[in-house]
Amino acid sequence: MTKCVEILSVGTELLLGEIVNSDAAFIAGEIAKLGFLSYCQGVVGDNAQRLEESVSHALSRSDILIITGGLGPTCDDITKSVTADFFGLEMHEEQSVKQDIENYFKDIGRNMTANNLLQALVPEGAVIFKNRWGTAPGLAVTGKPRGAAEEKTAILLPGPPKELEPMFTNEVIPYLKRFSDQTIYSLNLHLYGIGESAAEDILRPIMDSGENPTVAPYAAEYEVRIRITAKGETEEICREMCRKTAEEIRKTEAGKYIYAESEPEENPSDTIVLHLMNLLREKKMMIGTAESCTAGMISSRIADIPGSSDVLAGGIVSYSNEVKKNVLGVAADTLERCGAVSEECAEQMARGALEALGCDIAVSVTGIAGPGGGTEKKPVGTVCFGVADKNGAETKTMHFGSLSDRGKIRRLTTAAAMMTAVRRIKGTEI
Amino acid sequence: MTKCVEILSVGTELLLGEIVNSDAAFIAGEIAKLGFLSYCQGVVGDNAQRLEESVSHALSRSDILIITGGLGPTCDDITKSVTADFFGLEMHEEQSVKQDIENYFKDIGRNMTANNLLQALVPEGAVIFKNRWGTAPGLAVTGKPRGAAEEKTAILLPGPPKELEPMFTNEVIPYLKRFSDQTIYSLNLHLYGIGESAAEDILRPIMDSGENPTVAPYAAEYEVRIRITAKGETEEICREMCRKTAEEIRKTEAGKYIYAESEPEENPSDTIVLHLMNLLREKKMMIGTAESCTAGMISSRIADIPGSSDVLAGGIVSYSNEVKKNVLGVAADTLERCGAVSEECAEQMARGALEALGCDIAVSVTGIAGPGGGTEKKPVGTVCFGVADKNGAETKTMHFGSLSDRGKIRRLTTAAAMMTAVRRIKGTEI
Repeated sequence: MTKCVEILSVGTELLLGEIVNSDAAFIAGEIAKLGFLSYCQGVVGDNAQRLEESVSHALSRSDILIITGGLGPTCDDITKSVTADFFGLEMHEEQSVKQDIENYFKDIGRNMTANNLLQALVPEGAVIFKNRWGTAPGLAVTGKPRGAAEEKTAILLPGPPKELEPMFTNEVIPYLKRFSDQTIYSLNLHLYGIGESAAEDILRPIMDSGENPTVAPYAAEYEVRIRITAKGETEEICREMCRKTAEEIRKTEAGKYIYAESEPEENPSDTIVLHLMNLLREKKMMIGTAESCTAGMISSRIADIPGSSDVLAGGIVSYSNEVKKNVLGVAADTLERCGAVSEECAEQMARGALEALGCDIAVSVTGIAGPGGGTEKKPVGTVCFGVADKNGAETKTMHFGSLSDRGKIRRLTTAAAMMTAVRRIKGTEI
Repeated sequence: MTKCVEILSVGTELLLGEIVNSDAAFIAGEIAKLGFLSYCQGVVGDNAQRLEESVSHALSRSDILIITGGLGPTCDDITKSVTADFFGLEMHEEQSVKQDIENYFKDIGRNMTANNLLQALVPEGAVIFKNRWGTAPGLAVTGKPRGAAEEKTAILLPGPPKELEPMFTNEVIPYLKRFSDQTIYSLNLHLYGIGESAAEDILRPIMDSGENPTVAPYAAEYEVRIRITAKGETEEICREMCRKTAEEIRKTEAGKYIYAESEPEENPSDTIVLHLMNLLREKKMMIGTAESCTAGMISSRIADIPGSSDVLAGGIVSYSNEVKKNVLGVAADTLERCGAVSEECAEQMARGALEALGCDIAVSVTGIAGPGGGTEKKPVGTVCFGVADKNGAETKTMHFGSLSDRGKIRRLTTAAAMMTAVRRIKGTEI
């Protein structure tokens, strides 16, 4: 039977909102890939009684409990003693851990204080995971805890991501594999230009047609993702199951909105920019931007990705009309007759950027991000786009709605500008 | 008695590690500021039985449960029905919510599907929090849930941070204040150019001298914040207590690093850019940028703030050397002799931007954001800055360390560029 894994994060700083629980997200992603089930996660402070209660509650419903944090040398770090006590295990000083801690301090050239040696105490029979980036080792104990009828496993890991992540990848995953009998694999389809509920309406028959793979829509800010998840014996089998379901989805009305596929390990918020970059690289093209309301967000988002200098020439942030005229060559007459937020201006901006930046394709945006500046004819959220290359220029206008705030309008505009460039390169309607 | 608040996040994507639980961190920080206790947090998937179990368990130990997520229009969004059922409340269609949803779709120019109207169903007697950035309203219900001896409150909020955060700030905090028996007020001091532990060393005597107000340093990415928090009967009393402690801190060695004060409601990540904008406005100056490694992040961050067109002329993103030469007028000889990452190049970029953009002050950055491109003499994290105005130009070089990743180096560079402009305008050493 598939084992159920639960994550419990220990630390008052999480309860005070001082840090975001990135450990839980990291571990959750890894255990999902290993094919474990996971139904709940918990956070509890540095308090022995509440920690024991949480450990007990979690192990009453899950087979394996991964506890992060509370392994440090200070006296509010109580995870180890509470867990050992709950499993009825004595603690002893482990020589290899003691040696590691002494070496660690020698290495960083600092004096070791006595409380650091508390970290060499481990419950009897524990599996030890070496900490290469700090002093607290990771630990796994298996046994019948107080009040339980079955064997359970608790895995204790240090809280700092820098220590936890390499330990998890190098030592905990190989350890966990003994508990896993199947693999889970997910595939994301990225849709642009359709809402979550409309996508669901179309996909309802596929979503309802089976339990494996499952199909679930998920709304991101500027796109909808369809997550296909398959369970099976090997990753290959799962991958094939997902591929077949993806094929089915591509044949529906929703298919025409799909612009990319990704595996969950990739950062999904980068999909549009990665898609654009791959396309530019493939065609050996350099892109340039002419940005008004986004004011550099498009070029900056492209530069987020390492290696962007292969595809990004540069950009002109033409926030004022003077810069539109003097750097991009927009005609004063156009600004007067049509206004800065017009397709005429967007076209001249794109053509001007193409020339000034010496790039192969240039995309331009000019719009009203709000909250001020809207008019009846051009309400807040109106954005004009231009795109130019050696074959000419095209323009379009989009409306991102007065209900969106300034930041959202600018982010939606950035995504739309990238999709405009993608479509121009692919030769489809922008 | 001080009420105990618990946060329960609903969403399979959290259990799969696809997103980090930033909602929980945000809410936890806000409820701590309101003076509530909080001992535990939970995460559960989109499953009715387990959700009900989690709601029941949480309300057995806490007075107020804040549930995020699972309010969308799709059928795996079950938070509302499970909570209504647990409190024994019928659902009815709320006309005002229905109207809001219809208006939302009209505004964004998309068709509303039938399942969107499910979001107009609310439990009887619920307090409704308007969602200005999406369709699912927030809800609060108070009553005796199944099996409970006392009254409990459940607050249901949409999961997307862009919807949740403004709703929480504008509507949920005023609602929650009725449950709080005292006022808590915080003041942030913003320090630039000093580390957290150095600040703590200086402030230790003040931090140890009393329990009310408390003084705590907090390391943000590019600055240190000192949070002064006072508890008292009225906001006025608390404000005065904080003000006195702030005075004391300004008299210490740490005082010279303080560049701004803010109240917690303001978005503290905007402090440097707000400070720069206020200064520009006061001096009636327009700023321009010449950006290489930040590639538009500086101008985009300035444009984040409404009304930025008063102070931002525009910018040149000179990612390639060709743009540095052709648009900014950097000498080919300089690029060859000194390289693009040099103070000589930064100076010419700033002077070139001042001229091309016709602004009053221009700031430039050119650096190595990594992961590639570093050399022994110019390792990853080396950034050269320039600033120019009618009186001339200045330059400096900073090192953001090879341990920082690409994103962090670019964000630190953006903050440092803004502080460089601030110092030039103030006439202090850049």
